[in-house]
Amino acid sequence: MTRLEEEKVFKDPVHKYIYVQDQLIWDLINTPEFQRLRRIRQLGTTYLTFHGAEHSRFSHSLGVYEITRRIISQFERSEYRDWPREEKLVCLCAALLHDLGHGPFSHSIEEVMEFDHEEWSCHIIEGNTEVNRLLSAVEPDFPTKVASIIRKTYEQPIVVNLVSSQMDADRMDYLLRDAYFTGANYGTFDLDRVLRVLRPHQGRIVVKESGMHAVEDYLMSRYQMYWQVYFHPVTRSSEIILRKILLRAQELCHSGYSFRWIPEPIMRLFRQELDVPTYLKLDEALVQTAFAAWTEEEDKLLAGLCSRFLHRKLYKYITFDREHESEAQLCLEELVAAGMNPNYELEIDFPYDLPYHVYRSPVEGQSEGGRGKPPILLLEPHGGLTEISRRSDVVQSITGMHRGQYRLYYDEEAAKLISHRLKPGVLTRLGLDA
Amino acid sequence: MTRLEEEKVFKDPVHKYIYVQDQLIWDLINTPEFQRLRRIRQLGTTYLTFHGAEHSRFSHSLGVYEITRRIISQFERSEYRDWPREEKLVCLCAALLHDLGHGPFSHSIEEVMEFDHEEWSCHIIEGNTEVNRLLSAVEPDFPTKVASIIRKTYEQPIVVNLVSSQMDADRMDYLLRDAYFTGANYGTFDLDRVLRVLRPHQGRIVVKESGMHAVEDYLMSRYQMYWQVYFHPVTRSSEIILRKILLRAQELCHSGYSFRWIPEPIMRLFRQELDVPTYLKLDEALVQTAFAAWTEEEDKLLAGLCSRFLHRKLYKYITFDREHESEAQLCLEELVAAGMNPNYELEIDFPYDLPYHVYRSPVEGQSEGGRGKPPILLLEPHGGLTEISRRSDVVQSITGMHRGQYRLYYDEEAAKLISHRLKPGVLTRLGLDA
Amino acid sequence: MTRLEEEKVFKDPVHKYIYVQDQLIWDLINTPEFQRLRRIRQLGTTYLTFHGAEHSRFSHSLGVYEITRRIISQFERSEYRDWPREEKLVCLCAALLHDLGHGPFSHSIEEVMEFDHEEWSCHIIEGNTEVNRLLSAVEPDFPTKVASIIRKTYEQPIVVNLVSSQMDADRMDYLLRDAYFTGANYGTFDLDRVLRVLRPHQGRIVVKESGMHAVEDYLMSRYQMYWQVYFHPVTRSSEIILRKILLRAQELCHSGYSFRWIPEPIMRLFRQELDVPTYLKLDEALVQTAFAAWTEEEDKLLAGLCSRFLHRKLYKYITFDREHESEAQLCLEELVAAGMNPNYELEIDFPYDLPYHVYRSPVEGQSEGGRGKPPILLLEPHGGLTEISRRSDVVQSITGMHRGQYRLYYDEEAAKLISHRLKPGVLTRLGLDA
Amino acid sequence: MTRLEEEKVFKDPVHKYIYVQDQLIWDLINTPEFQRLRRIRQLGTTYLTFHGAEHSRFSHSLGVYEITRRIISQFERSEYRDWPREEKLVCLCAALLHDLGHGPFSHSIEEVMEFDHEEWSCHIIEGNTEVNRLLSAVEPDFPTKVASIIRKTYEQPIVVNLVSSQMDADRMDYLLRDAYFTGANYGTFDLDRVLRVLRPHQGRIVVKESGMHAVEDYLMSRYQMYWQVYFHPVTRSSEIILRKILLRAQELCHSGYSFRWIPEPIMRLFRQELDVPTYLKLDEALVQTAFAAWTEEEDKLLAGLCSRFLHRKLYKYITFDREHESEAQLCLEELVAAGMNPNYELEIDFPYDLPYHVYRSPVEGQSEGGRGKPPILLLEPHGGLTEISRRSDVVQSITGMHRGQYRLYYDEEAAKLISHRLKPGVLTRLGLDA
Repeated sequence: MTRLEEEKVFKDPVHKYIYVQDQLIWDLINTPEFQRLRRIRQLGTTYLTFHGAEHSRFSHSLGVYEITRRIISQFERSEYRDWPREEKLVCLCAALLHDLGHGPFSHSIEEVMEFDHEEWSCHIIEGNTEVNRLLSAVEPDFPTKVASIIRKTYEQPIVVNLVSSQMDADRMDYLLRDAYFTGANYGTFDLDRVLRVLRPHQGRIVVKESGMHAVEDYLMSRYQMYWQVYFHPVTRSSEIILRKILLRAQELCHSGYSFRWIPEPIMRLFRQELDVPTYLKLDEALVQTAFAAWTEEEDKLLAGLCSRFLHRKLYKYITFDREHESEAQLCLEELVAAGMNPNYELEIDFPYDLPYHVYRSPVEGQSEGGRGKPPILLLEPHGGLTEISRRSDVVQSITGMHRGQYRLYYDEEAAKLISHRLKPGVLTRLGLDA
Repeated sequence: MTRLEEEKVFKDPVHKYIYVQDQLIWDLINTPEFQRLRRIRQLGTTYLTFHGAEHSRFSHSLGVYEITRRIISQFERSEYRDWPREEKLVCLCAALLHDLGHGPFSHSIEEVMEFDHEEWSCHIIEGNTEVNRLLSAVEPDFPTKVASIIRKTYEQPIVVNLVSSQMDADRMDYLLRDAYFTGANYGTFDLDRVLRVLRPHQGRIVVKESGMHAVEDYLMSRYQMYWQVYFHPVTRSSEIILRKILLRAQELCHSGYSFRWIPEPIMRLFRQELDVPTYLKLDEALVQTAFAAWTEEEDKLLAGLCSRFLHRKLYKYITFDREHESEAQLCLEELVAAGMNPNYELEIDFPYDLPYHVYRSPVEGQSEGGRGKPPILLLEPHGGLTEISRRSDVVQSITGMHRGQYRLYYDEEAAKLISHRLKPGVLTRLGLDA
Repeated sequence: MTRLEEEKVFKDPVHKYIYVQDQLIWDLINTPEFQRLRRIRQLGTTYLTFHGAEHSRFSHSLGVYEITRRIISQFERSEYRDWPREEKLVCLCAALLHDLGHGPFSHSIEEVMEFDHEEWSCHIIEGNTEVNRLLSAVEPDFPTKVASIIRKTYEQPIVVNLVSSQMDADRMDYLLRDAYFTGANYGTFDLDRVLRVLRPHQGRIVVKESGMHAVEDYLMSRYQMYWQVYFHPVTRSSEIILRKILLRAQELCHSGYSFRWIPEPIMRLFRQELDVPTYLKLDEALVQTAFAAWTEEEDKLLAGLCSRFLHRKLYKYITFDREHESEAQLCLEELVAAGMNPNYELEIDFPYDLPYHVYRSPVEGQSEGGRGKPPILLLEPHGGLTEISRRSDVVQSITGMHRGQYRLYYDEEAAKLISHRLKPGVLTRLGLDA
Repeated sequence: MTRLEEEKVFKDPVHKYIYVQDQLIWDLINTPEFQRLRRIRQLGTTYLTFHGAEHSRFSHSLGVYEITRRIISQFERSEYRDWPREEKLVCLCAALLHDLGHGPFSHSIEEVMEFDHEEWSCHIIEGNTEVNRLLSAVEPDFPTKVASIIRKTYEQPIVVNLVSSQMDADRMDYLLRDAYFTGANYGTFDLDRVLRVLRPHQGRIVVKESGMHAVEDYLMSRYQMYWQVYFHPVTRSSEIILRKILLRAQELCHSGYSFRWIPEPIMRLFRQELDVPTYLKLDEALVQTAFAAWTEEEDKLLAGLCSRFLHRKLYKYITFDREHESEAQLCLEELVAAGMNPNYELEIDFPYDLPYHVYRSPVEGQSEGGRGKPPILLLEPHGGLTEISRRSDVVQSITGMHRGQYRLYYDEEAAKLISHRLKPGVLTRLGLDA
C-alpha cells in the first residue's frame, strides 16, 4: 500500500474535500472505466423533475470512498479492537468501485433488460481492464477479493457490512448528495453525528445506544427523500417514457426493423450480447444521442416517445387511493376499450414499496439473504444488540408503512383523440369534460 | 400578460425556489428549444476539474430569470419612478432566453469556429421555432423586442442595462451557481444584500452609495472564481484538447477524409452550413458521442485526442512567470525542433486577461461599444454618479491587474519519445531527467 | 397604520433580514420594555450545555414577528378570501409582543414561583408603559385587542390561531433559532416549504394536503430538538440547581434571614409583591449578579448552590429505565437514610412528557381549552379537514410516545461524604465503589 | 500529557464539533476562571447593533483552541520537520487561555482605564488560581511557559507565531464566529482551505505560494467585517455612551460622591486597586446591573447615560468626509459654545484606522516589536519568503488604506434644547431646521 508523497484532494460540494492518500486509489480513479462514471447520472431521469440533479455516479463513488475512509480513520484513531486494520485498502477499493458497473439510466434499463449492475461491477473488476491490472498488481487475487466484497461473500463479514448495510457509506453519500443537487434540503442529516456513533463490533458495524436519535435523523431524511424525490410522480412519468422507448426499440430490433441509425452497443444490449468492452461504451450521452436520432425514425410510436423524452413532454397522471386499485384498473380498461394502446400509451404505477426502501426490519423466520441489506443494530451498554425498530417508535412507524397511491399515467393527446368514446365519469376524471 | 392561476415553482439549490407567475414564461420553459439547454453544461469541460460542475445552462437560465424577477419585484414594491413598469414581461423573457443560442462547449467551439452564441439566441427567437410562436402571440413584434434587448439595441436603455452590465443577473447567477456546484464556496456573495442596493436611475441600474462594500464583496467573489475555477490550469488543459479535436476533425473534414461516422449537424458545423433546425440538434451528448466514436477512427491524431478527452488523460504543463514569456516560446521551439507537432502536441496559454473579466473600468477616450458591458456606478447622496473603481481601492486593485503566468501545455508521452534529443535544461524543466 | 418612508431591516442570522415596514412596529421595538428582552436568554440555562445558546428573547421575538409577516404577506399576495386583511397590524403586534412578559430563566422561575409569563405580557401591554402608550395611539382599545390575542379570547379566531397553534410562528422561529445557535443542525426544517403549504380556511390556519410531508419534516425537527437540546440531561441538571437556589433563597427570605445583599426586585419576587415597574427590572444580569454575591453568603447551602451555578459544577446523575421508577425512588431513599438532604442534594427527574411537547393530537371527549394549542389540520382536496396524526404514521409515532428514563440527580461531594453508610449496590450504581 | 479515555466533544455552531483529547484541556475548561468567560461577550456592545451577537469569549476561546488543534494535527500528520512536536500541549493551553484576562466590555474599559487584558491573562495564569494549579501540576514552570507565549517572549518563536500573528487561530475564529452570530455572511472564508496552505518553516508559520488566493479570501472577509460590523456607526455610538458612563462614574467616585449602590469590584476598578480575585468578579452581568441601578442615581448625568445604555437610546451622528475634519471640529465647537457639555454630550469619532487592523505590512526601518503582529509570508517554491502585499495587489489595496469618515456623535435631546442658539448651517446639518 504505497502512500502518495503528498495527499491529493478533490473539491467536493458535499464533503468539502475528498482526500486521497494511496497511490492505488489515485490510479483507480484515473482509469477509463472509472472516468466513464462521469457520463452516467446518479439519479437517471430525475433531472427532468429537479433541474439540479445532473450529478454523476463519478462524484457519488468518490463520496462513498470518502465516507468509508473517514469511518475507517475514526476506527483506527480510536483503536477499536474489533476493526481489522489490514482490511483498509481492500475496503476502500470496494467502496470506490462498487458502482463501476452502472449503465446509463440503470434503474430503468435494469427493469426492462433484466441485468444487474453489481454483477457488471464484478465483471469489470475481474475482466481485462485497467482497473483489473491495477488491482492485480497489489496481489493476484486482489481483484477477486474486491469483487467478493461487492458480492457479499468476502470472508471478513465486517468489511461486507461496512460497504453494504442499511446505513452504509453508499446510502449516506447518496442521500446527502441527492439532497444537495436537487436542493431538497429536507434530505439532509448530520453526517458527523452519525459517523461518531458507529462502532465495529464482532464482525458488524453497529450503533452505540446513545446514537439512536442520530439514526432516526438519518432514516427520516431517507424517508423524506423517498417521498419528495425518488418517488416524485414526474420522475416516474419520465421513467415510464424511457422504459417504453426501450421496449419499443427492442421490439423493433427483434422484429428485424431497419433503424436509420442505431449504435452498435445498444443493438447488442437489446440482443443480450454484451461483453465488457462493449458494455463500457454504453453511457448516457450515447443513449440520448440515439433517442435524438430516433425522433426521426419511421416508426411513429418510437419517434413519438423519443420526442417526448427529449423535449420533456411527459405523460399526465391521475391518482387513486391505495384502497381503490380496482378503480384504476377499470379506468385503464375503459381507455383501452375506447382505443388507446395499452402497451405504449398507458401505465398504472404504484411506487410506494416503502418498507423495502426506507428501512426494513428483519422479519422473523426470514433470512437476510439475497439482496437484503443487514438491519441497523444498537449496541446496549451491557453489550447486547437490539434491532433499532424495536427501540424507536419513529423507525417503527416507517418500517411497516404501506401508504401511497396508484397512479394512472396516460398520453393526453391520444386520450383526447378517443375522448368522444369515453363515459362522462372517465372524462371528468381526466379533466377532458370542459 | 396572463397570470397563472396558481404560482408554479421550481426547486432550485441556489435560490431555493424559482417562482413562475406568468403563463408565457411557463410555456417558454416548456419549448423544445429551451429544454435543449438541459443538454448543454454551464461550465463546458470544467467538470473534468471540479466533478460537481455538471450543471446545465437550463438551470442557469432559470436562475437569471429568477434574479431579474426579484429585482423588478423590488423596484415595483418600492415604487421607484425611474423603473418603467410596462417593461416587466419583455425583460423577463430576455433574461430567460438570453443564453438560448449556446451550443455544446460553447466557449471552446466559439473560439475555433468563430461564431457567436448571442447571435444564435436571436436567430432562434426570430426563427421558425416554438419560442417564436409563443412570443409572437403577445404581439407581432415581441420577438424582435426580446432579441433587441439581447443585441443591446432596445429603445429602453434601462432594460438593456438590467439584462447586461458588469453586475447583471447573468453574472450574479453564474457566480453563485458555479460556486455551489463546484463546491468553491469562496465564490459566494450575499445576493440579498446586493439586490437591496440596486436602484433604477435615469435609464440605468446603479448602486446606492452605501452599497459599495456589497459590490466589493460581489467583485471579490468574481475575482476568486476566476483564479480558482474559470482559469484553473486543468480546465485550460481540457479546453486545449477539445479545441485540438475540433481543429483536427475540421481539417480532416475539409481534406475529404472519410469518417467511419460523423453526425450530420457536426459536419455542417465544420462546413459552416448551419441553419436553426440543425443548430438545435447540436448538444453535448452528440459531441461526446462523436468523440467516443472517433477514438476508433483511423486517423491516429484524432483518435488519440478523443481518447484523451474521453478518459481524461490531459496534457501536462509547466509555468513561466509573466516576464518570461520568451522562455516559454523558446522551450516550445526546442520541443518542435526535437520533433513534436506544434499544432497538436503543444500549446502556450495565457489566460489571465483579468481586467476584462473581473471588472473593467471605463478608460478615457474609449467607448463602451461592442461587447463591452457598462461599468458599475455609485449613486451619491446628492444625485451624482461615480464609477466604482474611483471610490474603492479594492476594486481599483483588481481593475488594472496583469499578473498571471504563461503555461506551456504538452503531450507528455510524445515528449518522452523525443526526449533524447532535448537539452538538459528542457529535460529538467519537464521533469524528464530522472 | 403609517408606513415607514423607507423599509428598515435588521440583520438576522436565521432569517437573513427582518423587514419592518410600519412605524408602529419600529417604535414598539424601541421601547424600554421590548429592549429589556435583550437581557433574557431564549433558552435559559441551556448555554451551560450548548455554549452557543446565548441568544435572547429579543431576537426570537423579532423572528416570530418576521415569520408572521411573511405568512400574512403570502396570504395577501395570493388573495385568499378567508384571510381578514384588516387584522394585519394587530396580528403583527401580538406576534412581536407575545413574549414581552418573560422573566429571567422563566421556565425555572415559573415552576418555582407559580406565575405565568403570558399574563405578564398582558399586564405590560395594558399597564402604564411605553408599549401601552404606542398601542393606545392607534385606537384606545388596541392594547386590549393585542392582549386578547395573547389570551386567546380575541373575536377573530383565525388571528389567535395564527399566533398560537401547534405550528405557529413562535414554534417555527424558536426551532430554527435554537438549532442555529446551539449548532444542532438536525433541528432544521425547510421554513419556505412549510410557509408555502399554509392556508387560511374558515377561521383557522390549515395545511394543504400535499403539505403533509413538510409538516412531518417540521415535527421531526421538533422531536430531535426535544431529545437533543430541550431535555438534555446537563441542562436539566442546571435547571435543578437553579430551582434549588430559588427555593433556598425564598425560604431564607421568609424565615427572616438577613442577606448581605439582595436586590429589591428579587425580594419582592419572593414575597409575591411584584408590580409592572418592578417586574421590568428583573433580568438575567440581575439574577446572575445576585447569585454571584450569594456565593459569599453565610448560609452555606445557598452559597454552595450559587457557587455550583456560577462555576458550572452541576449535579451528576444516574438513569433508570421508565419501568424502573421505583428503583430510582428506592435509591433516593437510601441516600436520604444515609444522611443526604432530600430537598437540596437530590432530585428525581422525568422530563419526557413528549406527547404534550412535540405534538398533541386531540383526544376524544377532551376540549382544547386551557393552554392546549390547536392541532394541525390537513385540508383535503374536497374541502374536509383531517387531523394530521390520522394520516401520518410518522406523526402518529411521536404523538403517543412515552419512552424516556428517570434520572436521579445528586450532589456527588455530599454523596462521597456519606458513602461509607451506603450499600454496595448503591455504591456501584454511583460509581463510588472503586 | 494524559489522554482522556474517550475523546470529548462540544457542539459548536462554527466548527461543528470541538474535540478535547487531553485531560488537562478538559480540566482547564472546567475552572471557575475559564467558566467566567461565559459572562463576557465576545463583541462587547455590538449586540445593540446586531442582535445575534450575544456570543461569549468562552465560545471564542474554545474555537481558538480547536483551530490550533487542527493546525497542529495537520502538521503532525504531514510529518513536517520544522514543527516541534513536543510543544503541542503548551501551545494548546496558550491558545485556550490567551483571552482569560478579558474583562467586561474590555475594548471600551481598556481605553478608559488603561489596562491590558493580555497582562491580566498572565496574572491569572501565574496567580493563585485553579488554572495555575492545573498547569503547575504538569511541571512547575509550565504556567510561566504558557504566559510567556502570551507575552510573546517564549523561546520557541514558532509557537508564539502560531498563537499570535496576522493570520493566527484567534483571528480566524473570531472572523468566522462573529460572522456567524451577527449573520454577516460576507465575513465568511473557507477555513479548511486556509488551514491546508499553512506550513511550519524555520521558526515561523508561513503560507505555501499557491495559497495566496486563500489568504486574500481571508483578508477580504476581514476587511468586510471591519466595515460592516466592527466599525459600525451604531456600535461606535454605544461604545461612546459606555465610555462616558465609566468616565462619569469614575469622576464621581474620585470626587467622593456617595453612590446609592456601587459594587465593590467596580469601585476598586475605578480606584485602580484590583487584584486577581476581585478582577475575576468583574463580569458583564455585574456591570449591567450597576448601570441599571445607576439609572436611579441622583447624579442626573450618570443616570441619563445609564438609561440611554440600558434602553438603547443612543447618540445620533452626522458624518464628515476625511478631508473635512476641521468642519467636524468647528461644528462641535459651535455646539459647545451654544451650551452643550463637551465631555458628555458630544464626541468626534474616527474609527477607520484600517492599515493596523485589516492587515499591516512591515514598513521599512520599523521593527515588529510591541503589539505588532508578524506579517503573512509566502513560501516560494525555491524556498524564499515574500511578504504577501508584495505579491497581491488585492492585499496591497487594503494595506495602505486611509479612507473613512469623521463622525460627530451628539445627544439629540440636549441639542434641541439649545438649538435656538445655533446658526442655520449647523441646524440644517443636524436636521433641526424643520
